[in-house]
Amino acid sequence: MNIGIVGLGLIGGSLGLDLRKAHHTIYGMSRSARTCELAVQRGIADVADCHPQILERADVVILCPPIGLIESVFDQVQPYLSPKAIVSDVGSVKGAIAPLLHQRWPRFIGGHPMAGTAESGIEAAQSDLFQGRPYVLTPLEDSDPVAVETLKALVQDLGATLFLASPRDHDRAVSLISHLPIMVSAALIAAAMDSDNQGVLQLAQSLASSGFCDTSRVGGGNPELGRMVAQFNREELLRSLDLYEHHLQQLRRLITLGEWENLEHSLHHTQTARPHFLES
Amino acid sequence: MNIGIVGLGLIGGSLGLDLRKAHHTIYGMSRSARTCELAVQRGIADVADCHPQILERADVVILCPPIGLIESVFDQVQPYLSPKAIVSDVGSVKGAIAPLLHQRWPRFIGGHPMAGTAESGIEAAQSDLFQGRPYVLTPLEDSDPVAVETLKALVQDLGATLFLASPRDHDRAVSLISHLPIMVSAALIAAAMDSDNQGVLQLAQSLASSGFCDTSRVGGGNPELGRMVAQFNREELLRSLDLYEHHLQQLRRLITLGEWENLEHSLHHTQTARPHFLES
Repeated sequence: MNIGIVGLGLIGGSLGLDLRKAHHTIYGMSRSARTCELAVQRGIADVADCHPQILERADVVILCPPIGLIESVFDQVQPYLSPKAIVSDVGSVKGAIAPLLHQRWPRFIGGHPMAGTAESGIEAAQSDLFQGRPYVLTPLEDSDPVAVETLKALVQDLGATLFLASPRDHDRAVSLISHLPIMVSAALIAAAMDSDNQGVLQLAQSLASSGFCDTSRVGGGNPELGRMVAQFNREELLRSLDLYEHHLQQLRRLITLGEWENLEHSLHHTQTARPHFLES
Repeated sequence: MNIGIVGLGLIGGSLGLDLRKAHHTIYGMSRSARTCELAVQRGIADVADCHPQILERADVVILCPPIGLIESVFDQVQPYLSPKAIVSDVGSVKGAIAPLLHQRWPRFIGGHPMAGTAESGIEAAQSDLFQGRPYVLTPLEDSDPVAVETLKALVQDLGATLFLASPRDHDRAVSLISHLPIMVSAALIAAAMDSDNQGVLQLAQSLASSGFCDTSRVGGGNPELGRMVAQFNREELLRSLDLYEHHLQQLRRLITLGEWENLEHSLHHTQTARPHFLES
């Protein structure tokens, strides 16, 4: 199958490596001529170019720019797409984009491969990045079944684990397990820094150990990532924050009232629930 | 020096092993005759007994029962203490206990060795548990300087890193970096479980990865520990929760208002601050 990949960074580049290994022909596109050169040299693409005309033979086109640019990249490539082309993307939020592009291109189906490293750019592209990792496709009710099956087969070629969900369910789930933790964790760091007493702050910094380290990790991560998920998944993130604040208030109420048995019961509940999120 | 250790579990037993290696004579006491036997067999104590009379020759007595029992254990052993004995404890909260026992026994100085494993009991006792770990002593303004120096020397014998703090500053610091994270993290698990949609819950469980795993770890820990820190450090924990909620509301406000530059700035601030808590 002829596959166009637009944006040859960590995700686009890694898709190219694995889909080529699965005997597809990869047409790469990047704004940077140097990246196009590297893509061919590294075996990410069979051919690569800065001009969208490179995509005209593609049966499937996967848009892999940063999430804020997906729509404008689609604008740019649309005139060159084969009318039968299936289009997908790799954005980490689906609600805003998937229905919109589906309206503009009925054979568009949103995708979200949940893999990554701390690195970015074509240099970070690697084989088997998606192996065993979740890959969510978000077809709509009236999506073309052939397009869905074609993308499912590509997910299988990557060795990824396929999930199907509506764009809204996808965004709700990732807001709870991925975007909410960033804010929860960042507020912890902010609170720990905000001591009115220099001695307490220094002592806190000295005594902090694995519990603080783990709970604060994602709140101390890339600020642009945090901004981006909030910006693109605002509605679901605010909904998750509501839910979170409700449960934090519940715990707080038990502590204020000294309801120790009930507090222990609640913590037993979270202890029992956590493993169900870690088994996959 | 003759050292009495009351309570021969993970902490008391490990103290015994290392202080004996440092050529002190250890007088162990436990409610359980079997534990006393094991303590002598394993080289934790030179002698051990269920009766507090075993402590009458001790220059220093370290109380190592669970935090809720420290005062009653002191009641039990006090009649047998040498009038010059220095007394300390290993409780993870100091504000409630240290000033009270100081009043009853002027040579009492609170202590908190910040080390542990997931195990408990005398079987879990191990050498070098305190090596390189923080050990906080909480002398009061009128504490006997000789008693403070004596305990400082024992902390050095353990290879631990000494910190001196008032009981209140200690409790405030540990509430921020150790007790608050438990509640913050437990509320995250509770929120993630509380989806009104079974499909979203299952998807969230399937998609959860390292970010959720780390942020939820201490909230999925031992419920008795969470109850205990809340119960004994209630005032400071509620104060830390106030601070935390304030900062979470700030982040939420920026998201609600769409102030993306300010949100990124806040997250940059937490990214910069976090390493100061991890360097010790």
